[in-house]
Amino acid sequence: MPVNQRSYEYGTSKSSIREIAAYGAQRKAQIGAEKVFDFSLGNPSVPAPEEVRRSIERSLELPPVQLHGYTPAAGLVEVRQRVAESLNRRFGCDYGAGDLYMTCGAAASLSISFNALVDPGDEVIVIAPYFPEYRVWIQTAGASCVEVMADPQTFQVDTEAVCAAITSRTKAVVVNSPNNPVGSVYSRQNLEELADVLRERESALGTAIYLVSDEPYREISYGCEVPWIPSLYDRSVVCYSYSKSLSLPGERVGWVLVPNTNPDHDELVPAIAGAGRKLGFVCAPALFQRVVMDCVDVPSDVAAYERNRKALTEGLSALGYEYIEPQGAFYLWVKSLEPDAEAFFQKAKALELLPVPSNSFGCEGWVRVGYCVSHQTIVDSMPAWRRLAEQYAQGDA
Amino acid sequence: MPVNQRSYEYGTSKSSIREIAAYGAQRKAQIGAEKVFDFSLGNPSVPAPEEVRRSIERSLELPPVQLHGYTPAAGLVEVRQRVAESLNRRFGCDYGAGDLYMTCGAAASLSISFNALVDPGDEVIVIAPYFPEYRVWIQTAGASCVEVMADPQTFQVDTEAVCAAITSRTKAVVVNSPNNPVGSVYSRQNLEELADVLRERESALGTAIYLVSDEPYREISYGCEVPWIPSLYDRSVVCYSYSKSLSLPGERVGWVLVPNTNPDHDELVPAIAGAGRKLGFVCAPALFQRVVMDCVDVPSDVAAYERNRKALTEGLSALGYEYIEPQGAFYLWVKSLEPDAEAFFQKAKALELLPVPSNSFGCEGWVRVGYCVSHQTIVDSMPAWRRLAEQYAQGDA
Repeated sequence: MPVNQRSYEYGTSKSSIREIAAYGAQRKAQIGAEKVFDFSLGNPSVPAPEEVRRSIERSLELPPVQLHGYTPAAGLVEVRQRVAESLNRRFGCDYGAGDLYMTCGAAASLSISFNALVDPGDEVIVIAPYFPEYRVWIQTAGASCVEVMADPQTFQVDTEAVCAAITSRTKAVVVNSPNNPVGSVYSRQNLEELADVLRERESALGTAIYLVSDEPYREISYGCEVPWIPSLYDRSVVCYSYSKSLSLPGERVGWVLVPNTNPDHDELVPAIAGAGRKLGFVCAPALFQRVVMDCVDVPSDVAAYERNRKALTEGLSALGYEYIEPQGAFYLWVKSLEPDAEAFFQKAKALELLPVPSNSFGCEGWVRVGYCVSHQTIVDSMPAWRRLAEQYAQGDA
Repeated sequence: MPVNQRSYEYGTSKSSIREIAAYGAQRKAQIGAEKVFDFSLGNPSVPAPEEVRRSIERSLELPPVQLHGYTPAAGLVEVRQRVAESLNRRFGCDYGAGDLYMTCGAAASLSISFNALVDPGDEVIVIAPYFPEYRVWIQTAGASCVEVMADPQTFQVDTEAVCAAITSRTKAVVVNSPNNPVGSVYSRQNLEELADVLRERESALGTAIYLVSDEPYREISYGCEVPWIPSLYDRSVVCYSYSKSLSLPGERVGWVLVPNTNPDHDELVPAIAGAGRKLGFVCAPALFQRVVMDCVDVPSDVAAYERNRKALTEGLSALGYEYIEPQGAFYLWVKSLEPDAEAFFQKAKALELLPVPSNSFGCEGWVRVGYCVSHQTIVDSMPAWRRLAEQYAQGDA
């Protein structure tokens, strides 16, 4: 192979989510968009708020050299200050611009964090089911990715299983709440238990274990508390993105927060900057840093997702489907009607229903139904969901 | 160390260029901006062309979900198609969208290319003096960075020295023309010689050697030919950025081209995509991809730099300074008036002149004078350059 083997493999092994979405697009072209019910992607269906457009227009009045010039590697100080103030207001903390590092979105936030933290041979624990790119970034940073299944009933963190998986090489545990793919939100009690486990293991093993909180869905929750991780566990790092909250996934802007309460703060802040530098990130896109400054407190349009969530859960409930009660994000985690989620997916696909089977997320027996789609898609999909259930009820499936 | 040592070091070892610029900013605040002559940075002083603003305004008329949504990892097809057509018109080639991968700027283009190409233990040759971040990205990809000095008279590639440095582990040679820091442009003859050397060594060693062409300054040249590398050497990769040509350094947009004439094209294209994925790049910023589409053929405002270049070279010539005739980019490579460039820099600094000593670029005895500054800065700096030369002439230095 004349090129790097692993890069080649990452470039040829398509994500199954993208493959399903590609099939959906092709199928829509064949039989009409309204006849295909594509629930595969996590691409926000809610438009960016009007404030984003106004912020861009306002920025265009700045001198171009100032507007489009390099920013500091960590981002414009005034942007980070505004983000810190927003976090301080919301979570009663005392962060400053120096605790934040602006990134090219959540993928960059996570990749940079792993590269800042791990040494070759380290282990990073992820809670399955999980976003499959975690594994790619963890391995690229030189660590191995250790899967720990969530509690199979509640899909909360199975803290005993995490405890059992921790070794002297465990450098970090990744949590993602509101959760992709499940749509669950980890409760305060669950996270307190996790924090206790980590502190106990740190003390027993004489190691430092980081809690990396991947929070792109923080603003998308349905009435429940989304606990602020750094208030529960000191050695934490928060990875954020505006992809979902401001519906800007293509613009690539987010941040990493190293809380000033993290005991390794003074080593970790430069390590984050150094990791960004070594991966080839120079700064987050300058114009969208300013958009973040202007829109940091603009609320996400959760109402649209909430309406979809209601229609989907009520519809599937009435048809006898089981699912995990969605508390956040825009995914419904539906139990497959047979143990083999891939087989279930194939039968759904024959009815033009396109969820994502759970094996893509490291877990058996479920599908992820992304309801970041038009409301009409959900309404129109119900007859197909009914036929699918009927096939299983009649033993035809 | 509780964090990754190398990331920490990359985050704490300041670039000397940034340190000089920081000193310049501080000094300006102390004694007045007009009294400090900061030639340290490569930040374009020419504003982005008006077409950029018009393109952004036009894009804002698109539905936000379409405008700000994820693009394919390689970039919007229509953007890549437009870039390919522009290259085809200019260089008589036959590229398509599939040969291009849009990136978050030149740093990403290079980091991704190295990660796509090299295996641990490989060697990548750079031509010194060189942009110091090359070493960071090459090492992060797992290879070692091998410096080969340019010809000390002409600062063209010393092809015999490159030939001597090539081993069976040499995976790539990086060229950068127009050159940062020298401002030279490699001649067609020089590059043909280099191509001959690479082909001969490939054949003798039975290996594949890539020519990675870093071209952010391609559009900024002063009347000389900037040869198109893929027409001279098949196994080439071109890394581009709009940071300089459209004065958009903070917006992070560029591309990697794998020419369809590259014999490893079909392995390298997915390896580039896989490298982007594994580093945490998801797509280039969507809005600025559209700006690229609209502005791909907008000429750079070379006239402003040319005026600066003329004033600087004429001024320094009259004072007896020696320099390499600048053919491109916006840097003048001036011979230090003593062998120790750092000592020369310190004396310049005492007169409020802030070039960058050549040791920052892996070479002794010169300074880089960045003339991407206001014309007035150049004019006003001349008395200080005169005093500096006089100190040396009088033996006071």
